[in-house]
Amino acid sequence: MDTYKVLEIKQSIFEDNDRQAELLREELKKEKTFLLNLMSSPGSGKTTTIVRTIEALKDEMNIGVMEADIDSDVDAHTVSKTGAKVIQLHTGGMCHLDAGMTKQGLEGLGTEGIDFAILENVGNLVCPAEFDTGSSKNAMILSVPEGDDKPLKYPLMFSIVDVVLVNKIDAVANFDFNFDKFREHIKRLNPNIKVIPISAKTGEGIEQWAEWVRTEVKNWNEK
Amino acid sequence: MDTYKVLEIKQSIFEDNDRQAELLREELKKEKTFLLNLMSSPGSGKTTTIVRTIEALKDEMNIGVMEADIDSDVDAHTVSKTGAKVIQLHTGGMCHLDAGMTKQGLEGLGTEGIDFAILENVGNLVCPAEFDTGSSKNAMILSVPEGDDKPLKYPLMFSIVDVVLVNKIDAVANFDFNFDKFREHIKRLNPNIKVIPISAKTGEGIEQWAEWVRTEVKNWNEK
Repeated sequence: MDTYKVLEIKQSIFEDNDRQAELLREELKKEKTFLLNLMSSPGSGKTTTIVRTIEALKDEMNIGVMEADIDSDVDAHTVSKTGAKVIQLHTGGMCHLDAGMTKQGLEGLGTEGIDFAILENVGNLVCPAEFDTGSSKNAMILSVPEGDDKPLKYPLMFSIVDVVLVNKIDAVANFDFNFDKFREHIKRLNPNIKVIPISAKTGEGIEQWAEWVRTEVKNWNEK
Repeated sequence: MDTYKVLEIKQSIFEDNDRQAELLREELKKEKTFLLNLMSSPGSGKTTTIVRTIEALKDEMNIGVMEADIDSDVDAHTVSKTGAKVIQLHTGGMCHLDAGMTKQGLEGLGTEGIDFAILENVGNLVCPAEFDTGSSKNAMILSVPEGDDKPLKYPLMFSIVDVVLVNKIDAVANFDFNFDKFREHIKRLNPNIKVIPISAKTGEGIEQWAEWVRTEVKNWNEK
């Protein structure tokens, strides 16, 4: 039985997204809910990574997931099997979520008692980077098959994230992905960015990622 | 020495994009230039496929390439090495090209004597699907690592393309990509879609793809 609901998100009525994002962040701070905005290209492994993350952390914290998609329920269906609280958000053709849309999603999910909320943003390296969702931290996944040159092509995305998970490292032998070149590209855009190589398929690197989440959730509740 | 120029594209001033697209298609028809709009996610292999396509067809037709990107020149640099006529288009943050922007690109490229023009659209499965560029045909690349469920998640894109190249089939053993399931998903959205499995890396399937292009270019000049 599927245990998620589906919410058709309305376009935001607010003109000043940055202001709305700040207000949402303050609210989440008071509620002690850490919100992670997770972005990537289609098919880089966001949903599988979320499933792995839930498995690694569900005994320590209450996790809620918002799955944003143009109009399918594939991801909420997958994530709901973990037992975590899940809502599917339909953006109605829109390629991103802003703070107003994220707030609608959080209200639909219900954040009471949620320590760690994950927003799986629409699969896209352009539009989601342009809108502050009100999240506590921004993360992205780049998968090895996409190539090490992506920071050159999507500089805004790589500039605004706090952490980048380099996924599908189990397949690295099949692709020319140069980690040194990649790190060089992104450090130029974003010197403080954290890079964590993972394989959501085999589980490699997931513990290091879970540790990053633990620390950030703890900081969010203490600051 | 790089032999391409870079054009900063302006936002279109036309309200009726569909009308502009039709006008552009008529112009291209008169000029006997077949325009292919090539779309995909970031990192699915558009540029490598274009290089392979040029290699396969350059002795039979004059090819011109427009590389659209937010703001890098990586792809024009790569494609210029083939000897084909290339222009880099910068969209200034925009996640798609419409007909007005494509027309600016074609004017920058110069279509005189060009039989086959390729527009490498911005890497994105959402926004580019929403705008008719004025192209003769629409193609997309889905790479095996992205997964066979993508038609469910980006239905508009799979609905509007004439052909889908399934790239990186050399890596198929590393990923769970079910071709039967994939064909079933897309045929429901788009019964006339043509599916061509390729590997831009090894060259597998490129001849079948080149044959599709030959036929379409011929039809465009005869109709």
